[in-house]
Amino acid sequence: MNLALLSEEDLLDDHNARLTGRRRDHLVDVLRAGEGDTLPVGLEDGLMGTGTVTRLTDTAAELRLELNQSPPAPLPLTLILAMPRPKMFRRVLQTVAALGVKDIWLINSYKVEKSFWQTPWLQPEHLRENLTLGLEQAMDTRMPQVQLRQRFKPFVEDELPTILRDRPGLVAHPGTPTPCPTHIQRPATLCIGPEGGFIPYEVEKLQEAGCQSVHLGPRILRVETAVPVLIGRLYDLCG
Amino acid sequence: MNLALLSEEDLLDDHNARLTGRRRDHLVDVLRAGEGDTLPVGLEDGLMGTGTVTRLTDTAAELRLELNQSPPAPLPLTLILAMPRPKMFRRVLQTVAALGVKDIWLINSYKVEKSFWQTPWLQPEHLRENLTLGLEQAMDTRMPQVQLRQRFKPFVEDELPTILRDRPGLVAHPGTPTPCPTHIQRPATLCIGPEGGFIPYEVEKLQEAGCQSVHLGPRILRVETAVPVLIGRLYDLCG
Repeated sequence: MNLALLSEEDLLDDHNARLTGRRRDHLVDVLRAGEGDTLPVGLEDGLMGTGTVTRLTDTAAELRLELNQSPPAPLPLTLILAMPRPKMFRRVLQTVAALGVKDIWLINSYKVEKSFWQTPWLQPEHLRENLTLGLEQAMDTRMPQVQLRQRFKPFVEDELPTILRDRPGLVAHPGTPTPCPTHIQRPATLCIGPEGGFIPYEVEKLQEAGCQSVHLGPRILRVETAVPVLIGRLYDLCG
Repeated sequence: MNLALLSEEDLLDDHNARLTGRRRDHLVDVLRAGEGDTLPVGLEDGLMGTGTVTRLTDTAAELRLELNQSPPAPLPLTLILAMPRPKMFRRVLQTVAALGVKDIWLINSYKVEKSFWQTPWLQPEHLRENLTLGLEQAMDTRMPQVQLRQRFKPFVEDELPTILRDRPGLVAHPGTPTPCPTHIQRPATLCIGPEGGFIPYEVEKLQEAGCQSVHLGPRILRVETAVPVLIGRLYDLCG
């Protein structure tokens, strides 16, 4: 937690907040903060700045806030991801939130096992928790939006063409002749398949909807490795 | 396992191999291969190609080999990594092996907890196992070399200058003014700190040894995210 992310419910008034639970414990046990110490804080979907500890109890930490910095620029990327295996899913959520992705669609695919959709990590409070961990890691405040689409064909036929209208689409597909473009720095849609990849029918449907197939070299990477490599290739994160 | 990696001990003769344990089970249980089926194989530090199943028993699979392809080009990168937390360490090893890094140094740093060095994942057979998983994922055969250096100062003063003689060095350090260079495509040394970063003394020592500090943008990334982003930034993996 490089920044404590505050929600509206944490605010006591415009200039004071109360942290409980994980964030209060992190502040005391990991950061070893006491009354008078300051730490980086941010208001969800708002400004960032510092919080000064004004009161500390066994269950809560009260902070006086000075919020005056904008969060880092969001990536203009729509990420469409075949639903990953649950044990990888949490990490992928945290990673994409940390990298600045704000628009995430989780879709079905032939090689997505049905059981993946049953994971408790898809419940709204757990989605939010893992996205928060990513934002707190990266020092960002803008909460990503996550959409779930458990049927591939209706999504690709009925919704994807609309998404692609204002942001052209790429599908990462090993073995295709075109390399993934570099530092495009403009809005785009990136589709990433499951472990084992999209099947040819799915790649065709994605192409029919307007996506271009691109590769990332001869190495087959796991989804959790391909995601940061692809995002860092499409956007200059230093820029 | 997109490729089964064979070692010398697996070879029955120049054209035949016997797989046991994990790889035999993966072949039967996941790939559902039977006698006559072929799968991608590679010989450790040698050629890749196909293996045709000639015999299958409860404990072994025998393959006839046709090895005629070179593995993908290695990255000309020396990666110097502060020893990660054990639960992240395995994944980082697999990731860097999959990305094509062949020269890995694990070093100490102020924020590396002493207990990290006690992890069983540092034992040679476990290092080899996780590097193998990364190579099998990426379809590569060249086994990376891993060096352990549990004392920061002697490493940085006595060994690092020699390493930097033929491959200039970068240290990833948030907040520094210079952005990480892009697609340098030549030998380099990259130093990545622990969670929380190198302390200022350590950054100074790395700079004295000849490293340049570079940043990756305003977001603070976890080591397991920073590693693929940095490697994909320094090298064009499509290239």
